[in-house]
Amino acid sequence: MKIAVDAMGGDNAPDVVVAGVERARDEDSQLEFLLFGDEARVRPLIQNDERITLVPTTEEISGNEAPVQAIRRKKDASMVRAARAVKDGEADALLSLGSTGALLAAGLFIVGRIKGVDRPGLMPTLPAATNDHGFVMLDVGANADNRPVHLYQYAVMGNFYAKDVRGIPNPRVGLLNNGTEPHKGDELHQAAYQLLTEASGLNFVGNVEATGLLDGVADVVVTDGFTGNAALKAVEGTAHTLLHALKDTIMNSGVKGKVGGLLLRNEIRGVADKFDASRYGGAVLLGLQAPVVKAHGAADVRTVYYTIKQVADMVSKQTITKFVQYFDAHKIAVPEEK
Amino acid sequence: MKIAVDAMGGDNAPDVVVAGVERARDEDSQLEFLLFGDEARVRPLIQNDERITLVPTTEEISGNEAPVQAIRRKKDASMVRAARAVKDGEADALLSLGSTGALLAAGLFIVGRIKGVDRPGLMPTLPAATNDHGFVMLDVGANADNRPVHLYQYAVMGNFYAKDVRGIPNPRVGLLNNGTEPHKGDELHQAAYQLLTEASGLNFVGNVEATGLLDGVADVVVTDGFTGNAALKAVEGTAHTLLHALKDTIMNSGVKGKVGGLLLRNEIRGVADKFDASRYGGAVLLGLQAPVVKAHGAADVRTVYYTIKQVADMVSKQTITKFVQYFDAHKIAVPEEK
Repeated sequence: MKIAVDAMGGDNAPDVVVAGVERARDEDSQLEFLLFGDEARVRPLIQNDERITLVPTTEEISGNEAPVQAIRRKKDASMVRAARAVKDGEADALLSLGSTGALLAAGLFIVGRIKGVDRPGLMPTLPAATNDHGFVMLDVGANADNRPVHLYQYAVMGNFYAKDVRGIPNPRVGLLNNGTEPHKGDELHQAAYQLLTEASGLNFVGNVEATGLLDGVADVVVTDGFTGNAALKAVEGTAHTLLHALKDTIMNSGVKGKVGGLLLRNEIRGVADKFDASRYGGAVLLGLQAPVVKAHGAADVRTVYYTIKQVADMVSKQTITKFVQYFDAHKIAVPEEK
Repeated sequence: MKIAVDAMGGDNAPDVVVAGVERARDEDSQLEFLLFGDEARVRPLIQNDERITLVPTTEEISGNEAPVQAIRRKKDASMVRAARAVKDGEADALLSLGSTGALLAAGLFIVGRIKGVDRPGLMPTLPAATNDHGFVMLDVGANADNRPVHLYQYAVMGNFYAKDVRGIPNPRVGLLNNGTEPHKGDELHQAAYQLLTEASGLNFVGNVEATGLLDGVADVVVTDGFTGNAALKAVEGTAHTLLHALKDTIMNSGVKGKVGGLLLRNEIRGVADKFDASRYGGAVLLGLQAPVVKAHGAADVRTVYYTIKQVADMVSKQTITKFVQYFDAHKIAVPEEK
């Protein structure tokens, strides 16, 4: 299998990208890479070019550019060329650490949507205190305005991914809402609740609240892209601020606290690791004709490596091909659908 | 000043309510209380009835009842009678630990809105890593569907409260959005952004993301009630899950970890206290003709005490009276306003 990698995206590119690619390549003899980037910067970083083809590109897309315009104008950007390689069948999947907005645009306009999927959703896998497989949540920001049918489609997509890639037999699908009672929420969520209740083949457990996310209240959390974005960022920000405050307090404490910190080092690291989402890889842009995965812009070598493993897992399991059939069997026509 | 207290609301009522009231009464000779509740249960709990008038009531509202119906039907519920006392001028403010929905209904239909405020907003004060005054956020769930003018009014209300009650001279007002750039968000937030940019007398710092909430990215965080509810619950749930996991890990660790935990006990407690919102009191239902404050259902005596101090602060500063004038000077007429 061949993975197209945008070597230029992210805060620590291309260094961490190349190192992550080489680590994954060393561990899995089936992996081949098309690496898109500035030859002068990327070539010297490659220790061993076995199963790595560097494709020189001359442009990059920054996080400050208007995504759709950037994708259309910068034909030779590393991200655009990588997406084009997937579209043209030269690669099986796309990985980037670059601008989320630009990757969404490249996914939509170059790789292309699966027929019937109205709005591809951005879906990270997050940790849960109560199990090891974590949970997926979508959409966390590919779309700002959603209709009920989009939320239904997110449920179908997330459910399939949780089963096929995460290996969860009968995923509990929950709708993120402002209370657990069936009538809760705004019009969008009330209507989505109805669609999910009537859906076949989903283990719909009803409304869930953001309080229970990290406690593993559902395996698939369905949400509109605006709310999901806020909930995800609130989880990430709170975890970061709390762990940072704890480390700061220990560093600035007296001898007693510092000794305590040393003795507890493994435990604190254990908790930080347990709630570190990067071991699950990146966020999948689900609903496209190939796996397109966004790793965090601040990703390190380890995260790039985990994300490649995730992408390779989707390719080897033929997740997208199987999903196209599954979706066709589970799509619904609702009055509001165009 | 006289505070009407619903003695029957909350998980640990009426015990913690009575104890909190007595503690506050002991510390502040200006405080008088009207305590509404089941005489057989409440009377025996009162150690000293100085400045405490027990008003016997025969009904209670549970969290499972439809709020508006409950308020209308249960005329002798402790919460309804307490709200009525405020409406009739027998008390200056209302405090309850009971159902949020019912308190919102009692606030709207009995205490009444301030003229011109379209939608009162529910506003907690939350801690920030970078300062001691924390930040306020509204709406966190009084409303599920908001229009841009509601968000503008939340900004005006939160700004006034932050100045008058929290003592922040020039509060930074931020709009919770899915990115910091001005064009970000759905239609609602794009339109709200415009209104806030054009508003006079507000130190509008633009869009803020949920990642930065606990880092104190703004002093007043403006959000629609649906997103705000999810963000608040995500913050609360993440903090709870992480601190719980840390305690669990220490308890289940070996001797080394347990000793470390003992040595670090003050530091861990310090972090937990720093991010414990209860020292700021409860959530204010802002936009009503009197202070109406909701303390957490699981509140302990200390939290009830802090919330009474918060309510007393609003009464003694005449926050609502001053706000009515302030709001009149800062209200805007927008096309969509009814």
